[in-house]
Amino acid sequence: MQLPLTVLRRCLNGKILVKLKDGKTFVGRLESIDDYMNLVISGCYEVNDNGEPMKKYGKSFLRGNNVIYIVTDFVES
Amino acid sequence: MQLPLTVLRRCLNGKILVKLKDGKTFVGRLESIDDYMNLVISGCYEVNDNGEPMKKYGKSFLRGNNVIYIVTDFVES
Amino acid sequence: MQLPLTVLRRCLNGKILVKLKDGKTFVGRLESIDDYMNLVISGCYEVNDNGEPMKKYGKSFLRGNNVIYIVTDFVES
Amino acid sequence: MQLPLTVLRRCLNGKILVKLKDGKTFVGRLESIDDYMNLVISGCYEVNDNGEPMKKYGKSFLRGNNVIYIVTDFVES
Amino acid sequence: MQLPLTVLRRCLNGKILVKLKDGKTFVGRLESIDDYMNLVISGCYEVNDNGEPMKKYGKSFLRGNNVIYIVTDFVES
Amino acid sequence: MQLPLTVLRRCLNGKILVKLKDGKTFVGRLESIDDYMNLVISGCYEVNDNGEPMKKYGKSFLRGNNVIYIVTDFVES
Amino acid sequence: MQLPLTVLRRCLNGKILVKLKDGKTFVGRLESIDDYMNLVISGCYEVNDNGEPMKKYGKSFLRGNNVIYIVTDFVES
Repeated sequence: MQLPLTVLRRCLNGKILVKLKDGKTFVGRLESIDDYMNLVISGCYEVNDNGEPMKKYGKSFLRGNNVIYIVTDFVES
Repeated sequence: MQLPLTVLRRCLNGKILVKLKDGKTFVGRLESIDDYMNLVISGCYEVNDNGEPMKKYGKSFLRGNNVIYIVTDFVES
Repeated sequence: MQLPLTVLRRCLNGKILVKLKDGKTFVGRLESIDDYMNLVISGCYEVNDNGEPMKKYGKSFLRGNNVIYIVTDFVES
Repeated sequence: MQLPLTVLRRCLNGKILVKLKDGKTFVGRLESIDDYMNLVISGCYEVNDNGEPMKKYGKSFLRGNNVIYIVTDFVES
Repeated sequence: MQLPLTVLRRCLNGKILVKLKDGKTFVGRLESIDDYMNLVISGCYEVNDNGEPMKKYGKSFLRGNNVIYIVTDFVES
Repeated sequence: MQLPLTVLRRCLNGKILVKLKDGKTFVGRLESIDDYMNLVISGCYEVNDNGEPMKKYGKSFLRGNNVIYIVTDFVES
Repeated sequence: MQLPLTVLRRCLNGKILVKLKDGKTFVGRLESIDDYMNLVISGCYEVNDNGEPMKKYGKSFLRGNNVIYIVTDFVES
């Protein structure tokens, strides 16, 4: 078994979807991650509940303790 | 008595249902777990209150501190 | 005086009622408990505000930091 | 000055009123307390905003971090 | 400069107003305080937004992590 | 670069605006601060969203973990 | 890989957009940051959901644990 954070780290440079506690969902390339689950996402954009792009954010830092879940093999719909 | 986290770890590779603090419920195979209750679920999908599949997510990382409860012997209805 | 967690541990194998922060109330046999108040409940079912059974869950893991209160001598109404 | 937790401990076996974060108010005899403010209340019942008994719970464990305030010299109205 | 907690401790035996996270406001004499900001208030009563007395509570223990602010030189209106 | 808390400490005796988690906004002279961001504000008053004075509080203690943001060079409008 | 906090620190003196837990969004020049993600923003102003300036705040201290996300390459629209 690979530990959960190891599974996440193997997603570096891959496209992920991140759901945050404020209800927003971001999609982008995972550029950096640390042990607190702080994330840097490049090419970051917000998607709606159907996964459709809503708004472009550029390179963004997401604070780890706001993360609810991360889809690690996100494929654009 | 097995400790609660030991009981959870024995569910590895089994199908579980996870209720998160944002109200969402996920079902999938438990692929990985750590001491913070971070989970990796493969074949993950969201279910509604009746346990019916709603939306497919693929392999997902669920942050431990958002977990409310986990049904360890989930059987699809 | 027995410490509160000692009182809880003496409920092992007994029937308890657990109120969680998301508003749900579960009833079942206390199978396991740790110092973080993580609980494993077997034969777990949800009850409504009148203590009437609503939904069966099976063996469930309840995360300790979601526990609000536990009735240790629950008798079905 | 007695420290706050010392004041609370001196209430052992006395009747107290406890307000919890989920809005519920419990009354009962303080049977046990620890440094995390976990409480065991015997003869526990819920009261409404006027202090009138609403529902009987029996011996209950209240998780410390849900406590908002405790009235230490509660007298039934 | 006196540290904030030193300023609070110097209010011992004085009348204070305490706003808690559940929206309630209490007034009373500060009888005890610790480093976690747990407070014991004697002659405690609830006041409305205009500072008018609403309900008597008697000696009360207020859990520190529910405190939002404390007015240290409260004068009844 | 001065660290953020150093920047705050240099505001001692200056007029600041503090936004708290319960939605309230206070203005006053910063009399004391510690590493937890606990603050003592003298001449403290509440302002509305337009920065207009609403209610006088006198010397007040604000608990650090309720602080959202602090405007360090507040000028009355 | 640069760690997330290193990526943030490299934004010093650059223009950033910060979303806070109370729903507010601030834009300004990042003047200071620490390991808790406490931020000092100079020339700070609030923007609406379309990134349009709403209200000027001046130099502001933002408490780290209220940060949800930070757009590091913000360009005014």
